Amino acid sequence: MVSKKHIESAHQRIQPYIHNTPILTSSILNGLTGAALYFKCENFQKIGAFKARGALNFALQLSKEELKNGLCTHSSGNHAQAVALAAQLLGTKAYIVMPKTAPQAKVDATKGYGAIVTFCEAILQAREDTLATIQQKTKAVFIPPYNHDWIIEGQATCAKEILEELDALDFVITPVGGGGLLAGSALAAKYFSPKTTVIGAEPEGADDAYRSFQTGILITSEHPNTIADGLLTSLGPINFEIIKQHVSEINLVTDEEIVAAMKLIYQHLKIVVEPSSATVLALVLKRKAFFKEKRIALILSGGNVDLGKLPF
Amino acid sequence: MVSKKHIESAHQRIQPYIHNTPILTSSILNGLTGAALYFKCENFQKIGAFKARGALNFALQLSKEELKNGLCTHSSGNHAQAVALAAQLLGTKAYIVMPKTAPQAKVDATKGYGAIVTFCEAILQAREDTLATIQQKTKAVFIPPYNHDWIIEGQATCAKEILEELDALDFVITPVGGGGLLAGSALAAKYFSPKTTVIGAEPEGADDAYRSFQTGILITSEHPNTIADGLLTSLGPINFEIIKQHVSEINLVTDEEIVAAMKLIYQHLKIVVEPSSATVLALVLKRKAFFKEKRIALILSGGNVDLGKLPF
Repeated sequence: MVSKKHIESAHQRIQPYIHNTPILTSSILNGLTGAALYFKCENFQKIGAFKARGALNFALQLSKEELKNGLCTHSSGNHAQAVALAAQLLGTKAYIVMPKTAPQAKVDATKGYGAIVTFCEAILQAREDTLATIQQKTKAVFIPPYNHDWIIEGQATCAKEILEELDALDFVITPVGGGGLLAGSALAAKYFSPKTTVIGAEPEGADDAYRSFQTGILITSEHPNTIADGLLTSLGPINFEIIKQHVSEINLVTDEEIVAAMKLIYQHLKIVVEPSSATVLALVLKRKAFFKEKRIALILSGGNVDLGKLPF
Repeated sequence: MVSKKHIESAHQRIQPYIHNTPILTSSILNGLTGAALYFKCENFQKIGAFKARGALNFALQLSKEELKNGLCTHSSGNHAQAVALAAQLLGTKAYIVMPKTAPQAKVDATKGYGAIVTFCEAILQAREDTLATIQQKTKAVFIPPYNHDWIIEGQATCAKEILEELDALDFVITPVGGGGLLAGSALAAKYFSPKTTVIGAEPEGADDAYRSFQTGILITSEHPNTIADGLLTSLGPINFEIIKQHVSEINLVTDEEIVAAMKLIYQHLKIVVEPSSATVLALVLKRKAFFKEKRIALILSGGNVDLGKLPF
């Protein structure tokens, strides 16, 4: 079980390598929503996404012996870059399996950190099979994208930073894909600000977390289809257990709502985010009455986007 | 003559209304250029551009009597929004003449601050004629876009903030259109960091400042044509006198170089800037050998762009 102490240790461990990212506000977006919104800009994080936190917290706990054959993982993009960065910092190799549908910007950046990239079909089975083959050959250590306490502890440091900077928050809203960020944020709230409620925002086209949460049974997305390419993966079982206990709701948003919110973020915050990040603002806009006059932190999970393919 | 005291007073006057905008860095962009780059993010300024500084410094020096008939100006966009904001803050009207080629985002934002917008042809003569008619009818006070000491003092506060935050800068590079920001920055360097050299970056398609600087005679752009819509105006005579004395060079960049630099800013700084802002990075990339290993502040002048018309 991830404890308060675990999250504090994780934060201490990764602090020399990550940014305490800024929190931005916009009076226009506050006006539009009728709420006080605090945007935690993980698009400004190392590798352009919160994923650096979890991957570094994992890699920094490995021994020299474990590190020597390299690190490996499968990821549609941001976790790939995070593992590649960790390998580069620790002076070892990174073997990354990426679905062939991954955004070019994420593929380029992963290679930019010196990783060896192998492409596969865009389904979980193909990703896991390809990785197993590579792992057998190289003996590299697998860094899981979300389903592991060390990853969850690392991702929890993002909400911890928010709760240390802002008082009396009513809500923290995070996107949900594999559930590392949502589970970590829920635990951070439990330990550092028990009165703050944590909600997950999920795309309708990859609604496994929503359905799992509603039924209490872990359901896998079969053919996820959403513009939020960072949220295609299904919830991990460890993540699900934490989310069931400590998250108050998971709400769905459509791709259309995601694109509209993404445009508002570019226009008024003047920052570049990927579609996954926009789910959180899309949710506030969708449930305006519910969120009215609340103090809400929204985690903008990343900013790695193919600029030539912006949806507006 | 704008003195050190004038700039200090201007800063004190406008400080309650403006942001001390953040300075961002990127290890990837430092690697690409071989220099230490500090990006002053005026895209995060009120109204999304540095122009808020000058317009507020002007408007805040007007008497109640002068304010009562409103403020007016002509502008392709950012100064328009700045005057509209000043009028809103001071509880008076804003009458704005805009060329019909102004970006929709800038027109919408100007109207958003409650300004009354009149469109005209995209040449200086038409702008001035239209404005004269409006001014005669309304008796509103004209807030000039750049050719005035109060405007120059206001714009100078941006470089002042940079020089207070960063030591031992070799260069400050600013875009140049009418010359308010460039002249103000040159004076700020003279007073607050005399060893720092100030350089202007200008689009080839609106090269009046470059040609004026080379010949020593003020030349007007006849048919400026550049993607940098904020830099279409010609240098003002007051600005030119300051620039001649205190700026070391004005260098040209092509639209192609501007677009490439703009893309790098979106990709690596993860922020939204308008084309004018990208001239400064384009210049560093163009003269890599000259700028190698130097400490350089680059003023990103604004972030008001039609998102549907991004050039990449």
